Amino acid sequence: MAEVEIGIGKSGRRAYGFDDIAIVPSRRTRDPEDVDITWEIDAFKFDIPLMASAMDGVVSPATAIEIGRLGGVGVLNLEGLWTRYEDPEPYLREIASLDPDKATARMQQIYSEEIKPELITERIKEIKSAGVVTCASVTPQRTKSFMKAILAAELDMLVIQGTVVSAEHVSKTSEPLNLKSFIRELEIPVIVGGCASYQAALHLMRTGAVGVLVGVGPGNACTTRGVLGIGVPQATAIADAAGARMRHLDETGVYVHVIADGGLSKGGDVAKAIACGADAVMMGSPLASAYEAPGHGYHWGMATFHPTLPRGTRVKTEQRGTLKEILLGPAHENDGRLNLFGALRTSMATCGYETLKEFQKAEVMVAPALQTEGKALQQSQKVGMGH
Amino acid sequence: MAEVEIGIGKSGRRAYGFDDIAIVPSRRTRDPEDVDITWEIDAFKFDIPLMASAMDGVVSPATAIEIGRLGGVGVLNLEGLWTRYEDPEPYLREIASLDPDKATARMQQIYSEEIKPELITERIKEIKSAGVVTCASVTPQRTKSFMKAILAAELDMLVIQGTVVSAEHVSKTSEPLNLKSFIRELEIPVIVGGCASYQAALHLMRTGAVGVLVGVGPGNACTTRGVLGIGVPQATAIADAAGARMRHLDETGVYVHVIADGGLSKGGDVAKAIACGADAVMMGSPLASAYEAPGHGYHWGMATFHPTLPRGTRVKTEQRGTLKEILLGPAHENDGRLNLFGALRTSMATCGYETLKEFQKAEVMVAPALQTEGKALQQSQKVGMGH
Amino acid sequence: MAEVEIGIGKSGRRAYGFDDIAIVPSRRTRDPEDVDITWEIDAFKFDIPLMASAMDGVVSPATAIEIGRLGGVGVLNLEGLWTRYEDPEPYLREIASLDPDKATARMQQIYSEEIKPELITERIKEIKSAGVVTCASVTPQRTKSFMKAILAAELDMLVIQGTVVSAEHVSKTSEPLNLKSFIRELEIPVIVGGCASYQAALHLMRTGAVGVLVGVGPGNACTTRGVLGIGVPQATAIADAAGARMRHLDETGVYVHVIADGGLSKGGDVAKAIACGADAVMMGSPLASAYEAPGHGYHWGMATFHPTLPRGTRVKTEQRGTLKEILLGPAHENDGRLNLFGALRTSMATCGYETLKEFQKAEVMVAPALQTEGKALQQSQKVGMGH
Amino acid sequence: MAEVEIGIGKSGRRAYGFDDIAIVPSRRTRDPEDVDITWEIDAFKFDIPLMASAMDGVVSPATAIEIGRLGGVGVLNLEGLWTRYEDPEPYLREIASLDPDKATARMQQIYSEEIKPELITERIKEIKSAGVVTCASVTPQRTKSFMKAILAAELDMLVIQGTVVSAEHVSKTSEPLNLKSFIRELEIPVIVGGCASYQAALHLMRTGAVGVLVGVGPGNACTTRGVLGIGVPQATAIADAAGARMRHLDETGVYVHVIADGGLSKGGDVAKAIACGADAVMMGSPLASAYEAPGHGYHWGMATFHPTLPRGTRVKTEQRGTLKEILLGPAHENDGRLNLFGALRTSMATCGYETLKEFQKAEVMVAPALQTEGKALQQSQKVGMGH
Repeated sequence: MAEVEIGIGKSGRRAYGFDDIAIVPSRRTRDPEDVDITWEIDAFKFDIPLMASAMDGVVSPATAIEIGRLGGVGVLNLEGLWTRYEDPEPYLREIASLDPDKATARMQQIYSEEIKPELITERIKEIKSAGVVTCASVTPQRTKSFMKAILAAELDMLVIQGTVVSAEHVSKTSEPLNLKSFIRELEIPVIVGGCASYQAALHLMRTGAVGVLVGVGPGNACTTRGVLGIGVPQATAIADAAGARMRHLDETGVYVHVIADGGLSKGGDVAKAIACGADAVMMGSPLASAYEAPGHGYHWGMATFHPTLPRGTRVKTEQRGTLKEILLGPAHENDGRLNLFGALRTSMATCGYETLKEFQKAEVMVAPALQTEGKALQQSQKVGMGH
Repeated sequence: MAEVEIGIGKSGRRAYGFDDIAIVPSRRTRDPEDVDITWEIDAFKFDIPLMASAMDGVVSPATAIEIGRLGGVGVLNLEGLWTRYEDPEPYLREIASLDPDKATARMQQIYSEEIKPELITERIKEIKSAGVVTCASVTPQRTKSFMKAILAAELDMLVIQGTVVSAEHVSKTSEPLNLKSFIRELEIPVIVGGCASYQAALHLMRTGAVGVLVGVGPGNACTTRGVLGIGVPQATAIADAAGARMRHLDETGVYVHVIADGGLSKGGDVAKAIACGADAVMMGSPLASAYEAPGHGYHWGMATFHPTLPRGTRVKTEQRGTLKEILLGPAHENDGRLNLFGALRTSMATCGYETLKEFQKAEVMVAPALQTEGKALQQSQKVGMGH
Repeated sequence: MAEVEIGIGKSGRRAYGFDDIAIVPSRRTRDPEDVDITWEIDAFKFDIPLMASAMDGVVSPATAIEIGRLGGVGVLNLEGLWTRYEDPEPYLREIASLDPDKATARMQQIYSEEIKPELITERIKEIKSAGVVTCASVTPQRTKSFMKAILAAELDMLVIQGTVVSAEHVSKTSEPLNLKSFIRELEIPVIVGGCASYQAALHLMRTGAVGVLVGVGPGNACTTRGVLGIGVPQATAIADAAGARMRHLDETGVYVHVIADGGLSKGGDVAKAIACGADAVMMGSPLASAYEAPGHGYHWGMATFHPTLPRGTRVKTEQRGTLKEILLGPAHENDGRLNLFGALRTSMATCGYETLKEFQKAEVMVAPALQTEGKALQQSQKVGMGH
Repeated sequence: MAEVEIGIGKSGRRAYGFDDIAIVPSRRTRDPEDVDITWEIDAFKFDIPLMASAMDGVVSPATAIEIGRLGGVGVLNLEGLWTRYEDPEPYLREIASLDPDKATARMQQIYSEEIKPELITERIKEIKSAGVVTCASVTPQRTKSFMKAILAAELDMLVIQGTVVSAEHVSKTSEPLNLKSFIRELEIPVIVGGCASYQAALHLMRTGAVGVLVGVGPGNACTTRGVLGIGVPQATAIADAAGARMRHLDETGVYVHVIADGGLSKGGDVAKAIACGADAVMMGSPLASAYEAPGHGYHWGMATFHPTLPRGTRVKTEQRGTLKEILLGPAHENDGRLNLFGALRTSMATCGYETLKEFQKAEVMVAPALQTEGKALQQSQKVGMGH
């Protein structure tokens, strides 16, 4: 771990984001049809290595089902609108129509409605009845109080999630969730995060989780870095977590999945996440642009309506295609935002790799994207503006 | 101290600013309520580690009192409008209404009015009568001539300040202020600056000052770097000064505070300043956006009206909230410009640190902000423009 | 090969593009008239080291002839419009008039027309009848099926080309083209690519090709980097391939040409490509701006109309001058986009080099262009806007 | 000389421009009045270390006289309009009024008029009669043929100048100027350039020149880097030339001046040039913004009207103040473009240095300016736009 000196009293490592790196083709190529992009975690097998983020503008019971049918898995936020309101649709429509000046304040009101345990059970069952794998998320603070309702619905996979979740939360006033004992005792497999360093990932892996979410601050709707000064660019965060996975595997024989959460917007980002060591990706913003997305062209993170320190933003999204077109194609645009997993497959084929596990070993280069990529996109936009 | 070769005849260290770095969460998290952000310097204790910059658009006697009540300390500029005019309000309004083309010239006129010692005493007493800690600034050139008026008002803390202040000023024509003897003999604790290197900070510490201001060129209203070519990015300047603090402590047993002066605009910047080694921050521009700020939506540095070589600019500021909202929240925006010290508290909690002194050891990474952070802000602006 | 650590589990080399480097004058200068920029490959000798890209908006039989007369060689795409339609002109005009929203979809339709072997033969003969060297490109997938038509026309040089072409393509469902045996048995000299690494270039050189195309993702009309995450900046890709050329020469005694394909827009880029080790350049986009270009102000890559994952964009191009003015001058503009090979000659003369082979040894520096170059261009644009 | 690997076949040094570095204050400060910025070269002493560039939009006989009176020296271009036309004023006005589309072509015509030796003598005498030091420039190609006219006017200092001038020009068709014998035999002191590397500077110093011009491609009106790919950022070029000066001094005992030519736009750039090792600066573009400048708000380099490969651009310049205000102040703006040498004096004083020679040893840091400096300027512009 080479450090650079920031000043006489401080050093730090250099970190890299997806836009800082590029994948290098190897000396072999392969037919896309021969590439295997399936993902297995715990008892579940998915056609594509995708978890849809637990954002109210992205995952509803309906889109969770659709995403499941398309081969991935949607994560329903159990502390979002779907468990606060019997019918959240009017609120989703209102949020999409709010004046930017008043959006945060009004969202704070809308999200002040209490969460109803019976709705938790009901929403999960709704997804389960469609025959797809069910997955839902809670914050560590509320995990215990909602577990009864969650277990009643026979959820398949639980996500325990926050901006930053650690294996060692310290509190003077309350007894925090002991992830290590909680996860080990729970029958449902748990994915936990976010984290963004080797040590943090390693300690989360030691809780018995089947996967860790890697990503602090990279999300499209996230302003954590500006507000708190905290954030690790994703390429480095993923590679560090992959290093932790290796050590944990060596120590325990257990393979814990690294799921790249946030900061992915194009097919190339999905490929880079895997090439940096991720087993799968969690995405929100790219799916919010689907016609079926519950956000009606908007999405926002769960920190957007924090009562005193909002750290996210309601983002307007262009509606680009169906969920199917976004995930599996065909693409009618060339900007990399459609057919994300067809792109992953082609990227692997172009570089000669057959499985996700092999692709984690792909050669990458540090190659800032600004100039190279910028030209084509700029020109492309000129065309659009010229007409 | 690794140097890079600029050319065959010249080498230099690489320096980093706040936007070049990010804080990395540790493997521990903590409740924000358990975090201690109080700051003690000399006999004074503050709820928040904040000094408000001695700018006429930011600190008036009234806002000094309000900032004191909110837990920080406002520094009144004793060479500004408040000591030149009995009633500076008409001039503040005029400055806020000046045409950009004529602003500098007219400000040069307005600031040519003489400073009145009796107003110095009066202004300090006005603040003192409210029961808050009083703090005021002078330049080294005028320190001696104003001391009688300052002492008459029983000032609590004195700031001796300039773009660059050194412990060894050389003059062929006059006897410069000998900081070392002056400060040691003075009863009032002195904070002195600006400086921006290990050696300069160390020598200022040796004058007997209780704190040094670190920052040359980073301010929002400052053009020193363009005009003079001088400037050290803040992350490096702070870390270097923190290194000097350690050496001075080792040599003398005396802990001299490092106060990051300038270049801070968001909560994340405050957190980064501490993480780089600062004990407290001095801010002007973020407070100029308060409804109560005397500048009526404008602020400017004291070098703005230099008669022959102005090195600052009158900056128009969006009025964002009350001083209370800016310092302590609640925030109704997500861009990190409100609830600056709530953000510091949350940043420390998210990274698992309990005190400012501990947080100085936080891990940081070199991670240019442009891409990662830019996306969310850009998108956020699009929303604003879409309506 | 110095690597930087991206994260604990991943390292990579730092890569550089043309905009990251600059050529350094030596201590000698030379008359431009004394500089030799001719290029010899196999039995062919060209006045300028130029291959025109196999893009339908750039190379038609007519422009191939014109480019040949001007000293370079145009590569006709045998899988483009010219071999699908007896008269492609109406389709070229339609493409130039398409609404951006519908361009990709309509181009997919237009390019779904079958390729006609008799047109392959006819087009090549048309060029040959003008007395210039004939060169045409096919993809590896279709090479075998079109060879009869190609050989019937007595083509001079064959280009086997794709986004990435490797010497070892793996397929479970079909028998892929064995480049090594195919090229060795063919009577026509073959140029093959693209590739972008030492290993990939070396293995392509071992197939018996006379030249390799270097460039994955740099092109002006290419979005491979965003869509697939794949791409190597050109300065590094060329230098790596030049390293492979040296090793292959050492192993076999055979000199295989390195042709920089894509990412060149100005005369300075051509000079940098040679200075990084290229023997010649392949360009499309700069030639698309010729009045004679078949694209009528537009050009696009062959991946633009991929049925499920388009990875190129139709780019609108300003029409700047005749092919002669673009290649050989005179220039009436100062932005480096006219008289590209006059610029190469002057660049070599200014640095004191006499031949392309010598110029490959020119000193270069890593010197990001943004600031230095930006100023003049910005100012220049201001002039344009001011009137 | 640490090199970075660009690719397997190519390495190069990292180069830095003025915007990449910043000067660090030392632990001493000084009164500006005590600072000495005079410059002595050969038998001449100047109040300020300034040569005004030989550009027709900058130096006329009248401005050469005014610049001389202000303490610097103006260099008249002996191959410009002043020696081609008895009265160049109508042509200067026409150039200032040309439509951008037609500017280059018309300038090519205007500059096709022959140079008249009698005008060379006359112009120099006109300047000489005002009692200031006379200095004028010629290209190496034409030096010999104009010498008689130059000597007739008793010129004080001769500049032999081109984009790149080397001590070893090679030509197959003509006998090039042998700088080494020519300069040694000439009675007038000669300054020669441009150059941009240690070797090139060293060899030019060995010709017997009293100074070398350092700068290839950095100028504000120069597009050499885009057109030819050639250019060395100024901080590195100056430091390299300063290294050559040291070696030449060691070898011969003769101190040859390093004059930073081009790329300077603000006071801070002048300070940085000296801090990197320059003895003086040559500037054009900042002086073109004077009310007295002959270009009427425009300036252009001598390569702008090259008949086949123009490599400069006619730049529109805001008219900012008198020559006196630009060079010596007072400044009424804060952007660093007025009072350039007052800024140099203040910069030296702020860093505690007394002479230019001492200031060459100032500490510098690598600190890209974009973020830090950008904020203030952006905000400043907002103010301007808000009214």
